[in-house]
Amino acid sequence: MRRITWAEYTALDVAQRIPFLAKDAAAEHEPFHVLYAQQFTRQMLDELCALADHIRRLHKTPEGAAFLQTLLPNRAALNLFAQPSTRTFMSFQAAEMRLGMQITDIRDMATSSQAKGESLQNSVRTFSSYVDLMVMRHPDRGAAELAAYEMNMAERRIPVINGGSGQDQHPTQALLDIYTLQKALDEIDGKKIAMVGDLLRGRTVRSLSYLMKNYKGVELFYVAPDRLRIGDDIKAFLKRQHIRYSELDNLEEIVPVVDAIYMTRIQWEWDKAAGATVGGEGQYDPRFVFRREYLDRMKKKSCLMHPLPKINEIDPELDYIEDPRIVYWRQERNGMWIRAALIARIFDVDKKIFSCRT
Amino acid sequence: MRRITWAEYTALDVAQRIPFLAKDAAAEHEPFHVLYAQQFTRQMLDELCALADHIRRLHKTPEGAAFLQTLLPNRAALNLFAQPSTRTFMSFQAAEMRLGMQITDIRDMATSSQAKGESLQNSVRTFSSYVDLMVMRHPDRGAAELAAYEMNMAERRIPVINGGSGQDQHPTQALLDIYTLQKALDEIDGKKIAMVGDLLRGRTVRSLSYLMKNYKGVELFYVAPDRLRIGDDIKAFLKRQHIRYSELDNLEEIVPVVDAIYMTRIQWEWDKAAGATVGGEGQYDPRFVFRREYLDRMKKKSCLMHPLPKINEIDPELDYIEDPRIVYWRQERNGMWIRAALIARIFDVDKKIFSCRT
Amino acid sequence: MRRITWAEYTALDVAQRIPFLAKDAAAEHEPFHVLYAQQFTRQMLDELCALADHIRRLHKTPEGAAFLQTLLPNRAALNLFAQPSTRTFMSFQAAEMRLGMQITDIRDMATSSQAKGESLQNSVRTFSSYVDLMVMRHPDRGAAELAAYEMNMAERRIPVINGGSGQDQHPTQALLDIYTLQKALDEIDGKKIAMVGDLLRGRTVRSLSYLMKNYKGVELFYVAPDRLRIGDDIKAFLKRQHIRYSELDNLEEIVPVVDAIYMTRIQWEWDKAAGATVGGEGQYDPRFVFRREYLDRMKKKSCLMHPLPKINEIDPELDYIEDPRIVYWRQERNGMWIRAALIARIFDVDKKIFSCRT
Repeated sequence: MRRITWAEYTALDVAQRIPFLAKDAAAEHEPFHVLYAQQFTRQMLDELCALADHIRRLHKTPEGAAFLQTLLPNRAALNLFAQPSTRTFMSFQAAEMRLGMQITDIRDMATSSQAKGESLQNSVRTFSSYVDLMVMRHPDRGAAELAAYEMNMAERRIPVINGGSGQDQHPTQALLDIYTLQKALDEIDGKKIAMVGDLLRGRTVRSLSYLMKNYKGVELFYVAPDRLRIGDDIKAFLKRQHIRYSELDNLEEIVPVVDAIYMTRIQWEWDKAAGATVGGEGQYDPRFVFRREYLDRMKKKSCLMHPLPKINEIDPELDYIEDPRIVYWRQERNGMWIRAALIARIFDVDKKIFSCRT
Repeated sequence: MRRITWAEYTALDVAQRIPFLAKDAAAEHEPFHVLYAQQFTRQMLDELCALADHIRRLHKTPEGAAFLQTLLPNRAALNLFAQPSTRTFMSFQAAEMRLGMQITDIRDMATSSQAKGESLQNSVRTFSSYVDLMVMRHPDRGAAELAAYEMNMAERRIPVINGGSGQDQHPTQALLDIYTLQKALDEIDGKKIAMVGDLLRGRTVRSLSYLMKNYKGVELFYVAPDRLRIGDDIKAFLKRQHIRYSELDNLEEIVPVVDAIYMTRIQWEWDKAAGATVGGEGQYDPRFVFRREYLDRMKKKSCLMHPLPKINEIDPELDYIEDPRIVYWRQERNGMWIRAALIARIFDVDKKIFSCRT
Repeated sequence: MRRITWAEYTALDVAQRIPFLAKDAAAEHEPFHVLYAQQFTRQMLDELCALADHIRRLHKTPEGAAFLQTLLPNRAALNLFAQPSTRTFMSFQAAEMRLGMQITDIRDMATSSQAKGESLQNSVRTFSSYVDLMVMRHPDRGAAELAAYEMNMAERRIPVINGGSGQDQHPTQALLDIYTLQKALDEIDGKKIAMVGDLLRGRTVRSLSYLMKNYKGVELFYVAPDRLRIGDDIKAFLKRQHIRYSELDNLEEIVPVVDAIYMTRIQWEWDKAAGATVGGEGQYDPRFVFRREYLDRMKKKSCLMHPLPKINEIDPELDYIEDPRIVYWRQERNGMWIRAALIARIFDVDKKIFSCRT
């Protein structure tokens, strides 16, 4: 891999950075570090979904679970979550456990040597001494990327996965959304997908929109209050990619039309931080709430998704209804399986897993 | 299992709730969720003690220990301790480790999505996505019960064990006390047991008193300062169950008479919270202190117990005397073994353990 | 082992304490508890280095790594780090993982029963109930020693390793420094070693100086600002042991002369705590900084070490140069291997490791 300075690296655009995130020069599109949803090709998405399915099946029997735990006995993972996130933290940890990795974590950077004046680069290099994989969530924008760069320069290069740093992307969340769509709908090509709620500040709808370029004939419906509409950069991207989309201000009308409804939480905390005194968790605009009766109007083969946590944007009664179309709890668990698949692929044990038919 | 609402469930008394905590309708008294000491029958207590003994014996050899770790390779445990408790936390964790479980923990709820407004029900459902067992200690009274109820309604029903939530019961502490009594005295039927100290606010003496209904001919001696006497509800329960008991205000006189002395700490923190300015850790009433010389007056076959932590209610010199009757340190370790037995039984590997004779 | 009181024990000097830290009376110099660098003889240092090398080699293959993890399946370790130290914490944890130990940790003593008034002795006894090894870092001087003493008095005696408590010694750091020197220079006898920077407050240079008595013909060069010179106690020790040393106030002149340069950080935090308003991390005296061009003047076979974290006392450009003489990152990783060796020896699996030739 060509060695370049951090200044040179950060002057590149995302597409130009991707080769630096690869395993080696011979496999430019095979992720080693995972920082951007754009790193995933259609073929890789399909293979990761198949691998996740196979891991899940194996894990159902004690023999299969025991086999999985023999895969990475000499690999240790560090989950570095300087920013609180129980959900993503647990999901990664569970994925690593299932592959038999050794696991350690840092949940509070105040306990690190950075308090003594050590640079983040040096801290990362230290952490990397003891482990073979680093999953990183950090309040500083670009922290995961800086860590990946540092690893490229180090004698012991270990992979870095962005676990949702700053307002950067959250690429493994996008992966689990794809996996969930595919499992629920059998295929994503040609499907109609609605995304509802806080489309301005929700990271997940943005990443998912980017990934749609990998699928043919998809149509997107963005349903949001006027002040929280999807960003212009995403719309420009969709136009360039010839992906059909429309913007609406009411969920109800498209419930019977779409194949997937992806609900999101209104992120009031941003409004509060900006000094808002009205509005809040209790005051949902009914046009962006999934009501109990909508379930009866959904297509027979369709799905209701949510990246969670949710507040009131989905009628809580749905939590207690068994219906194959309500998939948001399974979506969480899918995250664990697709993350296990991603890690298995990074460590080149994917073929070994596919060849096991316990 | 019949599905009922939370309001209907909480209107039930403890005896009526027990079937909802069972593995399935066919085994109404076999605990799946463990919330109340009342869930344990005499037969189950005897079987759990025998199982704990067998696990302990197996663990003594590397082969046996390695066998135990093959039992639950595809089971992950979450220790959710929103309230600090190093002692119980470590004990559960050690039990889970010894059965080869994958382990994760949450020790601070502030890192969870509840900060973003998610309901406890939804958080519990999320956590349950990644694990197969949840041990829960939470400051809110009834939190463990709410979690168990939520699991009954979920697609993936996983067991919940109350690790001492709020002022609720602490059923596994009662289990370890029973196990310790049985190991020290060979049997509990017909024994005389003194409970000493803060009987008003000590959760353990209450749970242990309830469990006495499973044994024949037990006689209890409650030794407490006037303001900290055992609750009237317990006395009413003992009368209904025809269990003999008496109340005293001095430990010394019954030392030579009883088979077990169960010391407890005066919980000054409650007095402090209520504004007390006198009294405190340093000022023990000598009538409720176990003095060094009492050891010489105890029966030859008897035991001195304490749920720990202790302050000055037992002469610290006893910490350094080797005497088979001083069992409070072993009592702690017993907790680990009986918790391992309980978890093994919940996951149906008890017979597999009994059949291993390494 | 003879039982003595804590008062009697603390009246002993270090040499007299060593037998109390041994496995048993038959092996007076074989450490069970590890508290002092003085516990290590030359023979033991050589054997631990050889063992660390062997463990490292085994770990390189999945088969070897899997073998290592079969060594201690029934041994659990507690890493009790009441004082923040991500670096040492991760290193011990990684060492324990590689030997297949079960691992638990306490990173905040506020969650322990000490808040309820329990003595440190009782807390230690409790923790020891669940584990087989305790690694301890605690702000109180002598806390690790108190824990070791308590274990000597307990029914279940488990080993205690000082992970750097208070201003006490940090014996495993000294071990890793020896291991790094030996790997880099092939042997330590007859070598010239410079120690640079804050020699007054740096714990590592003190421990390393003590260990030099095990090697023949070593010559030491202490390079420090006047106010931060090495302590008189160390100089008196070196004189008694006939170890040659000199004191300098400039690194540059001896760069071409020495075999090892051991850089240390100026611990400004002590000055700040004492009210200093000038000086600080950004203002390094160039006489005590390792500059980029010094690398070209170093001997061909020599090494540049640092216990880390470092700030500006080594030119950061060196972080990105591949040169076999720049060993400070490898030094960190060496810590993991030598700690694994130490733990393996305490648990008597060293011969088993040497006999494995996977």
